[in-house]
Amino acid sequence: MMPDSLNIHRHSHPLPLKDVVVHDSFWSVEQELVRTAVIPYQWKALNDQVPGAAPSYCMHNFKAAAAQNASKKQQGKSFVPPRYTYRGFETLPNDPQHPEPDKFYGFLFQDSDFSKWIEAVGYSLVHHPDSELERIADEAIDIVCAAQLENGYLDTYYILNGMNRHFTCLKDHHELYCFGHLVEGAVAYYQGTGKDKLLKAAERFADYVDSRFGRESGKLRGYPGHEIAEMALVRLYEVTGNHRYLDLAVYFVTERGQEPSYFAQEDRARAELDGTKYVPDRDHYAYYQAHKPVMEQDEAVGHAVRAGYFYSGLVDVARLTEDEALADSARRLWRDIVDKKLYITGGVGGTVHGESFSYRYDLPNDTAYSETCASIALAFFARRMLELEPKSEYADVMESALYNTTLAGMALDGKSFFYVNPLEVNPYACHRDERLNHVKTVRQKWFGCACCPPNIARIVESLQEYACTVADDGGTLFTHLYVGGEVKTALAGVPIRLTMASGLPWSGHCRAVVHMNATNADFTLAFRMPAWAGGEKAASSVAVSESSDGRISRMVRNGYLYLSGTWRAGDTIDIDFPMPVHMVSANPLVREDSDKVAFVRGPITFCAEGHDNGGNLHLLHADVSVILDNPDSVSVDEFEFQAGASGMNDSGLGKVDSVTRHMVRLRVPAWRETLPNKVDSSAITADTAASAPLYAKYRPATREPVTATLIPYFAWANRGESEMTVWLRD
Amino acid sequence: MMPDSLNIHRHSHPLPLKDVVVHDSFWSVEQELVRTAVIPYQWKALNDQVPGAAPSYCMHNFKAAAAQNASKKQQGKSFVPPRYTYRGFETLPNDPQHPEPDKFYGFLFQDSDFSKWIEAVGYSLVHHPDSELERIADEAIDIVCAAQLENGYLDTYYILNGMNRHFTCLKDHHELYCFGHLVEGAVAYYQGTGKDKLLKAAERFADYVDSRFGRESGKLRGYPGHEIAEMALVRLYEVTGNHRYLDLAVYFVTERGQEPSYFAQEDRARAELDGTKYVPDRDHYAYYQAHKPVMEQDEAVGHAVRAGYFYSGLVDVARLTEDEALADSARRLWRDIVDKKLYITGGVGGTVHGESFSYRYDLPNDTAYSETCASIALAFFARRMLELEPKSEYADVMESALYNTTLAGMALDGKSFFYVNPLEVNPYACHRDERLNHVKTVRQKWFGCACCPPNIARIVESLQEYACTVADDGGTLFTHLYVGGEVKTALAGVPIRLTMASGLPWSGHCRAVVHMNATNADFTLAFRMPAWAGGEKAASSVAVSESSDGRISRMVRNGYLYLSGTWRAGDTIDIDFPMPVHMVSANPLVREDSDKVAFVRGPITFCAEGHDNGGNLHLLHADVSVILDNPDSVSVDEFEFQAGASGMNDSGLGKVDSVTRHMVRLRVPAWRETLPNKVDSSAITADTAASAPLYAKYRPATREPVTATLIPYFAWANRGESEMTVWLRD
Repeated sequence: MMPDSLNIHRHSHPLPLKDVVVHDSFWSVEQELVRTAVIPYQWKALNDQVPGAAPSYCMHNFKAAAAQNASKKQQGKSFVPPRYTYRGFETLPNDPQHPEPDKFYGFLFQDSDFSKWIEAVGYSLVHHPDSELERIADEAIDIVCAAQLENGYLDTYYILNGMNRHFTCLKDHHELYCFGHLVEGAVAYYQGTGKDKLLKAAERFADYVDSRFGRESGKLRGYPGHEIAEMALVRLYEVTGNHRYLDLAVYFVTERGQEPSYFAQEDRARAELDGTKYVPDRDHYAYYQAHKPVMEQDEAVGHAVRAGYFYSGLVDVARLTEDEALADSARRLWRDIVDKKLYITGGVGGTVHGESFSYRYDLPNDTAYSETCASIALAFFARRMLELEPKSEYADVMESALYNTTLAGMALDGKSFFYVNPLEVNPYACHRDERLNHVKTVRQKWFGCACCPPNIARIVESLQEYACTVADDGGTLFTHLYVGGEVKTALAGVPIRLTMASGLPWSGHCRAVVHMNATNADFTLAFRMPAWAGGEKAASSVAVSESSDGRISRMVRNGYLYLSGTWRAGDTIDIDFPMPVHMVSANPLVREDSDKVAFVRGPITFCAEGHDNGGNLHLLHADVSVILDNPDSVSVDEFEFQAGASGMNDSGLGKVDSVTRHMVRLRVPAWRETLPNKVDSSAITADTAASAPLYAKYRPATREPVTATLIPYFAWANRGESEMTVWLRD
Repeated sequence: MMPDSLNIHRHSHPLPLKDVVVHDSFWSVEQELVRTAVIPYQWKALNDQVPGAAPSYCMHNFKAAAAQNASKKQQGKSFVPPRYTYRGFETLPNDPQHPEPDKFYGFLFQDSDFSKWIEAVGYSLVHHPDSELERIADEAIDIVCAAQLENGYLDTYYILNGMNRHFTCLKDHHELYCFGHLVEGAVAYYQGTGKDKLLKAAERFADYVDSRFGRESGKLRGYPGHEIAEMALVRLYEVTGNHRYLDLAVYFVTERGQEPSYFAQEDRARAELDGTKYVPDRDHYAYYQAHKPVMEQDEAVGHAVRAGYFYSGLVDVARLTEDEALADSARRLWRDIVDKKLYITGGVGGTVHGESFSYRYDLPNDTAYSETCASIALAFFARRMLELEPKSEYADVMESALYNTTLAGMALDGKSFFYVNPLEVNPYACHRDERLNHVKTVRQKWFGCACCPPNIARIVESLQEYACTVADDGGTLFTHLYVGGEVKTALAGVPIRLTMASGLPWSGHCRAVVHMNATNADFTLAFRMPAWAGGEKAASSVAVSESSDGRISRMVRNGYLYLSGTWRAGDTIDIDFPMPVHMVSANPLVREDSDKVAFVRGPITFCAEGHDNGGNLHLLHADVSVILDNPDSVSVDEFEFQAGASGMNDSGLGKVDSVTRHMVRLRVPAWRETLPNKVDSSAITADTAASAPLYAKYRPATREPVTATLIPYFAWANRGESEMTVWLRD
């Protein structure tokens, strides 16, 4: 096959999870953590059995709805359904230990906790059969399915509070969000176990949603307030082949933001029902990405998780419908994020207000929101862009989001979590400053609004879907992430197995080996050339076994190296990506990062912690002139990281499991500004520094040469409370 | 008199306003603005006659209360008083144009608007008799007095809403704040006109307050939620000689924060009355400076205006009672502000949350609160510290607060006002960022909560009280501020007149001349040596007329030059303070100002505006090495500043009165970081800068040499919307 004949814009799709195995010294640890720590912990949380953590009431609600269903069947026509009264976004029992058995509690989207858990369980069971876990999951599914109404509706908030008001507050009441998560969980559990009870329930719910929403007369012209149903419906379509689900996804994506505004109509109708005054809320629709139709959107705005989920569904739909205009919308929104709104940690969402994207180039470090879930949503979006068109830029961003902010969301022991991922933390400020209320200095045990921990669980357990995809024509296998393990698939009809050994993220040495029973076969292996390795120039670091000369042609396009031709069993692809330390500046329009540098090596963004560098990190400057003269002055040390206190436990900040992880730290030439009278600035605090005046005649800073120690960002806050900064002053 | 015999710790006090005249090319303009623009405008505002401004309802409320009083008298025992129901911190009529005539509207402290106005009027009438203004004021006083209850109580909020609940929510309902302002206004009007109708009303109210509060059994152990009554009562004591008012002030100052907490008791009692749940609010008492007794306080905390008023009352009480422990408390709190919490603009209050002092060394520039009133309160505090003990540091801070933040609070045409005084403004961000909601890019016409404009009015009109004081023993006249004009007083029993010509704030040339009918007299003239002129070293810039040799001795102590001996009529004191441009750094612990410099000359802090320097001011760097090598590279230009659009008028941002003011600007060697591809960074905006990537390999900034133009901070935002920064990167 000649390179010119490649249609490199062709679509690709992930392989079934069972056909991709992760055997990787880095990621296998993370997957094991999720499997052995997070999933069991989550189950306890769903059942309100984590001491000291806010109860979820998730399974409580399903049980209450199932009981109501049962009594409805028993009572027949004499059953009196509950009449709806709004009791707030979160409903708590008077006595948290004794919730009333027939009442709904928790946030109104609490059902989704189960769905995220069952999704992670579904992934986990693929490679780790666990009959006890499967039994627990099946029992949970029985309860959930027993809560489903005859018409297919399944959201315990309205079932328990009064169906007379269901689908009257799509904007804020998360019904279609819970629906979407249920579908995602059901598909994953079906794919993981082959059991379709939950999948059938999800289909019935989807059928009901489909019967209620759309442009046909008599249907509601609504769409989800919190997106996810779009991409969930695409998954349901892909697993069932039922085209109605795809059509519904297309409808949700394209109807959003159309005039007249559904949200406005809905708000008005609800005010009428309630006899209250309708207060237009139009300025707020950007929060929901519903301020205008997606075809007209060119700026990523609003709640960053909602946005990422929406854009993911948009790309899914664009790919499956081959709609170039929708694809262009996705490309525009991607550009806006990547060019103007992306943290160097792969985080997004600059402001706590609405947990949203901030304005262009506003990327504050200390007040950052950068929610773990938003980074995960960005990875969803990036993966789907890759499925739409293989361009290494998408994988670069996806990789950064996964290795940095996603992993930073979880402690190294898997037992505590960050919701918010700042790039600069000063605990002294965090304990005193209401503007930093959202920033935690140590990871928290669990959250009442527990979106992040289970989201980490589901993406880590399905990492395989991000690592590689296969072209829809079956002729090309794309490697996006260099994760050790193996892929089984058929390429151009020939069953093959590609094993991968990877030194990532600490070294750029990787080796792929082609295994097959056939003597030879014609197909293409496409490898991403990471930006951190030099982008397309990194192709020179890739060597195919010598014997392949003449058989395998090489072509680089859009950041992928396409190796095409006649492969033989045993062919090897040896990769030796350079992994220099990059000293990076932000665009000068990013005010917060002016006169600062960050250090990145491979996919890993580094940070300085007080544990290694003392306090007052704003007075620690990278010695950029030394580093520019001699890049080797930054040394790269492999070491065993000793994690200790990583978060809150029952007794507040305390020791949790001690964990050791092999990783890399950087030693960077630096200098510290000493305080007046040459006081060591790394030790002094705001409370002890009374001697020096607040303002004084300018004198150049007194520079004490030091070595800054930087650790991977994902590993911060694993040794107790401390200052931290990603950006160092230059 | 020999210097050694001076007791330089002796107390001093301001002279009667009538004995000090301001004739000064700088301050006379400000006083005229207040007299001719602000006071009439304020009167319209009190009467809800400013089109487009939020109605005050202030005079409406007094009229309604007066009418109720009248009908009570008419109806006698058949009068049914209103029963109290809380309607919110601000009550608005359904139709703003047609408030019901018998109802209270506006913020619950709205009475104070009148009091602040009458205070400014009182000051203004001293040197500018105005029979029409006095007639209006007298009529207003008639209305206010008609609203007073027989027992002396005078707060229209409770009179109209139900006296059954008066004095049940001192913490938040501002009754004693309104009381304090009424006293201040009454004293000023009495002093300005000799008319005592309002003063008598204030005394009756004070008597009633005194009958209700104190440590005696049967009295409430309360104290004001918003302080001011403390210093007001001291003024009332000073004007009436009634010692009970001083005792009440002492009680309020020393009872505050004692255990058991009065606020907690009050909250509990109110919850009981209301049948609601008592929610302890103890963590919030620092907001009111009521978290512990003042003797134990060593950090300035909470609402910055409240704090400044409280500390002012504290010093008053410490001075009059000669209580050294209270004086030490004041000194500790002063140190905390000046060493850790003071903006270089004389502003205080780093955070919008609670309009409060932030934690130590937290002085953010863009999110600063730095309320105009807080700066005024700081001047109150400083003046009282000077009265306690003459130390130039107090006057340095007072001068900075007056010349910078206080004046920045008002447009050069006197018609629009800032509440919040940031040190850095990026309008692009202000229009998009909820975290900056409190920051306005142009001055506003008036405020529903109109504390700042009338506060500016009253302090500007009484500037004389800040400029000089006379020692309690009558032997020394202190010059704290170099304001042109003249002082008439008796020193050591001899009537003298001291005239002052001053070039401040633009030049350090000042000349004082001693006038008297006596041939000679023994007394001391003490002049402050400003820190900006070199502090005590500046004494060498002061020359007494040659003929005085041998007659007048010189001594410098605590930043004052004491000239003592036998003065003759016609003696002159020629002052030629050096006025270099200071390039200033903040303490390295102030993170926001790290690697930045500010420029100060004399009492004036300068800033760069976009009008003169283009956009993206964060990329404009002071060329510190050039300036260090050659301080004369910063040039000082006198020029005529053309003010144009200074704030909001009816049609939004628009032109208001065009004003020309003589002032000084600085031309500072600087460089601009150009954007990638050498794009001029002063013109590009966040919306047009798509071409450069968000992150790139570090390269030293490309430096384009430019000259930065800095104007006085108080003059910013007088030419329409623009970026602004006080601190320039180095």
